[in-house]
Amino acid sequence: MTDTPDLPATPAAPAPVAAAPSAIPTVRIQAGRHKRALHGHPWVYSNEVDMDKAAKALPAGSVVRVVDAGGSPLGLATFNPHTLIAARFLTRNVGEAVDTGFFVKRLRRALDVRERLFDRPFYRLVHAESDGLPALIVDRYGDVVVVQANTVAMDRRLPMILEALDEVLNPSAIVLRNDSAARSYEGLAEEVRVAKGEITGLVPVEENGATFFADLSGGQKTGWFFDQRDNRAFIANLAKGRTTIDFYTYSGGFGVLAASRGAKHVTLVDRSAASLEVAMKAAEANNVTDRVEAVKGDAFNLLDRYVEEGRTWEVVICDPPAFVKSRKDLAVGSRAYRKMTKAAAKLVAPGGMLLVASCSHNMEPPLFHQEVARGLGEAGRQGRILRFAGAGPDHPVHPLLPETQYLKAMVFAVD
Amino acid sequence: MTDTPDLPATPAAPAPVAAAPSAIPTVRIQAGRHKRALHGHPWVYSNEVDMDKAAKALPAGSVVRVVDAGGSPLGLATFNPHTLIAARFLTRNVGEAVDTGFFVKRLRRALDVRERLFDRPFYRLVHAESDGLPALIVDRYGDVVVVQANTVAMDRRLPMILEALDEVLNPSAIVLRNDSAARSYEGLAEEVRVAKGEITGLVPVEENGATFFADLSGGQKTGWFFDQRDNRAFIANLAKGRTTIDFYTYSGGFGVLAASRGAKHVTLVDRSAASLEVAMKAAEANNVTDRVEAVKGDAFNLLDRYVEEGRTWEVVICDPPAFVKSRKDLAVGSRAYRKMTKAAAKLVAPGGMLLVASCSHNMEPPLFHQEVARGLGEAGRQGRILRFAGAGPDHPVHPLLPETQYLKAMVFAVD
Repeated sequence: MTDTPDLPATPAAPAPVAAAPSAIPTVRIQAGRHKRALHGHPWVYSNEVDMDKAAKALPAGSVVRVVDAGGSPLGLATFNPHTLIAARFLTRNVGEAVDTGFFVKRLRRALDVRERLFDRPFYRLVHAESDGLPALIVDRYGDVVVVQANTVAMDRRLPMILEALDEVLNPSAIVLRNDSAARSYEGLAEEVRVAKGEITGLVPVEENGATFFADLSGGQKTGWFFDQRDNRAFIANLAKGRTTIDFYTYSGGFGVLAASRGAKHVTLVDRSAASLEVAMKAAEANNVTDRVEAVKGDAFNLLDRYVEEGRTWEVVICDPPAFVKSRKDLAVGSRAYRKMTKAAAKLVAPGGMLLVASCSHNMEPPLFHQEVARGLGEAGRQGRILRFAGAGPDHPVHPLLPETQYLKAMVFAVD
Repeated sequence: MTDTPDLPATPAAPAPVAAAPSAIPTVRIQAGRHKRALHGHPWVYSNEVDMDKAAKALPAGSVVRVVDAGGSPLGLATFNPHTLIAARFLTRNVGEAVDTGFFVKRLRRALDVRERLFDRPFYRLVHAESDGLPALIVDRYGDVVVVQANTVAMDRRLPMILEALDEVLNPSAIVLRNDSAARSYEGLAEEVRVAKGEITGLVPVEENGATFFADLSGGQKTGWFFDQRDNRAFIANLAKGRTTIDFYTYSGGFGVLAASRGAKHVTLVDRSAASLEVAMKAAEANNVTDRVEAVKGDAFNLLDRYVEEGRTWEVVICDPPAFVKSRKDLAVGSRAYRKMTKAAAKLVAPGGMLLVASCSHNMEPPLFHQEVARGLGEAGRQGRILRFAGAGPDHPVHPLLPETQYLKAMVFAVD
C-alpha cells in the first residue's frame, strides 16, 4: 500500500499542521491529465501536476486543493513536491476541514467495518488509501494501537491522529512504529516510540480463537501480520491429526494455530531465537507445547537438509519475508520462490498439503502462480490449488488501486 | 473448467469402453510441441498432435498413449480427433489400467480432500481436470450424487464411473445431469436421467449451517451452486441486523443464509416463480419466513425501478447468471456487469455492503474488477474491496490451468 518507486529522498520542510480553508494552497493538474483523479483514483503523480514555482515551493506535507486545468476542484489532498506520488486525496469535498474531527470520522468508518468483521478487537484498523487515510496504518491489539505514518503529511498530523484515536478508542497505549522503508522516500527519519501509556514486554493477540504474542516495538512490521489470518485458519483446519512443519514461523501464527486445531505434531522453524521464543510462548498459552517443537535455522538450509534426509510432513507451510523488495530483485526473487516451492513440495507426504505465500508487492499474482506451479513440477509433484487468496478483509483494497494487493497465499492438495 | 472454444460439433463414433494395455493406440505430439505436456499440463491441443490418418481415424473417446516425437511416453489420455482439445491426460503412468479401479482411486483421493474441508457431505466431489478426471463433474448432496460427463470419453465410461461411485460412496441415488453446453462441442446429446435409485421432489442441501433445497433434474447446473459457499458465508455475516436484498436469488443461497445469520429483513428477487418457491422453502426450513419476502421480476427492471424510487438496502447482493457466455459477448456482457453494478451501488445505504459476482469464464478477474470499479464510480459511490474471491476449495484449480478460475465475487464496504 505504501510502497513508492525509488526516488531520491528529499528532506521535508515542516508543514503547517492546520490551516483555515481560505489558506489552503491550490495545485493544478495539467490539461487532460485529470480524468483518473476525477474518477476517484486516490493519487496524482508528480508528472501530472502543473509543477510551477509555487507548487515546487510548497512544503512537503501540505494539504492542498487539487483543481483541473480549468480550475474545477477535484478534492483536498496531501502534497509532496519531491515524491513520485505528489498528491494523495483525503476527501473529494473541498469544503471539508482536515482537522481532528476529520480523522475521527474516518476512524469511526473504518472501525464500523472491522466490528462487523471480527468478534475480538485485534485487526488492522486503518489500511491507508483503502480507508480514506492515505499512507496511514493503524493496527489494533485490544487496548493498544500501533500507528505508522508513511508520508510527511501524515507524520506532521500525528498529534491530530492521536487525539482522534483517543476520542474513538481511548486506547491504554499508542506505539508509533515509524520505521518503514516507505518513510525514507518521503525524507522521514525512522522513529519507534511509545506516544501514550506504557508497553512492557509482549502484547497478547487473539486471532482465530487462539492466543499469540506480539513484540510491538522490536518485531517485524507493526509486530504481527494480521493479513494472514484467514489463510492461517484455512490450513490449520486441514492440519488436524497431521504432522506439520511451519517454515519462517515468526510468532507462530500458522504453526501454533495448527497445533491448537489438532495437528498431531508441529515443527516451527525460524532463524531468530527471539521469534521462536515468542512462538513457544504462544504454544504454551494454547496448551500445545507437548505437540510443538522449535528448530532454529535458515529455512533454505533446512529445506535442503530435510529433502536430503528424505523427511516428510503431511502439511508444509512456507510464508517467507519478501524475496522481491524492489523491481530490480524480480528475477532473483522469482527464482527464490520457485526454489523454495520445489524443496517444500518434496517434503510433503503423499496426500498432504502445501501452503506457500509471498508478501512481495512487486511479485504479481500470475507470476507467483507460475513460479510456484513450476516449483511443484520441478519437484516432480502434482496437485491442485484449493485456495489462492490475498490478505484478509481488514486489509481492504482501493477499487482503483488493484496493484496494492500485495499478499498471495496458495494452498495445494498434493498427490 | 469444461468450456471449449467454438468448434463445429462432430458426431462421435462409439469408443471401446475397456481395452487391454497392449491394444491402446498411440498418439504422437509434433516435434517440439511436447514440453507443456511434459511439465504436467493436462491438455494437448489438436494442432499439436501429429494428426495422421491413423489418429484421425481413432474413435472419439478412445484412451490413447501419448508420446513425444521421439516416441517417449508422456501418459495416457482421453482422445477426440474432432475437438480443439484433442487429448486430456488421465495419468502419467502409461502402465496404469483405466478401469473401474482407476476411477475408484481418483474418487477416493478427491473424497479425502473434501472430508478434510467440510463437516457435512454436501460439495463438489470431482472438479474435472483439477481432480485428475478430465471433463467429469460429480456433485454430492448427502446420499445423492449428480454426475456430468462433458467428453465422449467420460460419457462412454459412465458405467465404470457409476460402478466406482457405488464402491466409494454407495449413494442411494445417482442423477446423470448431461445437459451442459460443453457436451455439444463433443457431439454428445443432452440427457438428464436417474441412473440409480429414485429422486422424488427437492433434495435438501446443508451449507454453512443452514438448510436449502435443490432441484437436481430441473434446476440450473447440477441443481445447486456449491462454488459460492464461502462468499455466501462472508456476506451473510456482514448482513446481521441489516436490511438485505438478494437479486438473482435462485434457491436462496445468499439471501436465506443472510436471514438465518440475523439479517433484519431480506428481499429475494428472481424472475422464476419456481426458484422463489424453492428459496422460500429454504426460508421455512430455517425459520426465517417472518423476515424474508420474495419478489418475482427481472433484476435489471427492478434495479432501475428501485433506483428511481430512491429505495436503499444496507446489504445488496447481485449474483447473476453468466452475461458473457462466449468471447463474442465480451463487450456487451462487460457493459452489463458495469450497468448492474452502477444500479446496485445506488441502492446501497451509506455504510452498507455490496456483493457483485460473475461466473462468466471469459470475463477475466482484472476486467471484472475494472468494470465493477467503473460501475461504482458511475453511481457516484466510493468504497473499498473487502473480499475478491473465486470458487470455494471443493472447486480446486489445476496449477497449469489458472484460466479455469471462472468465478469472481467482490464485496465492497460502500461509503
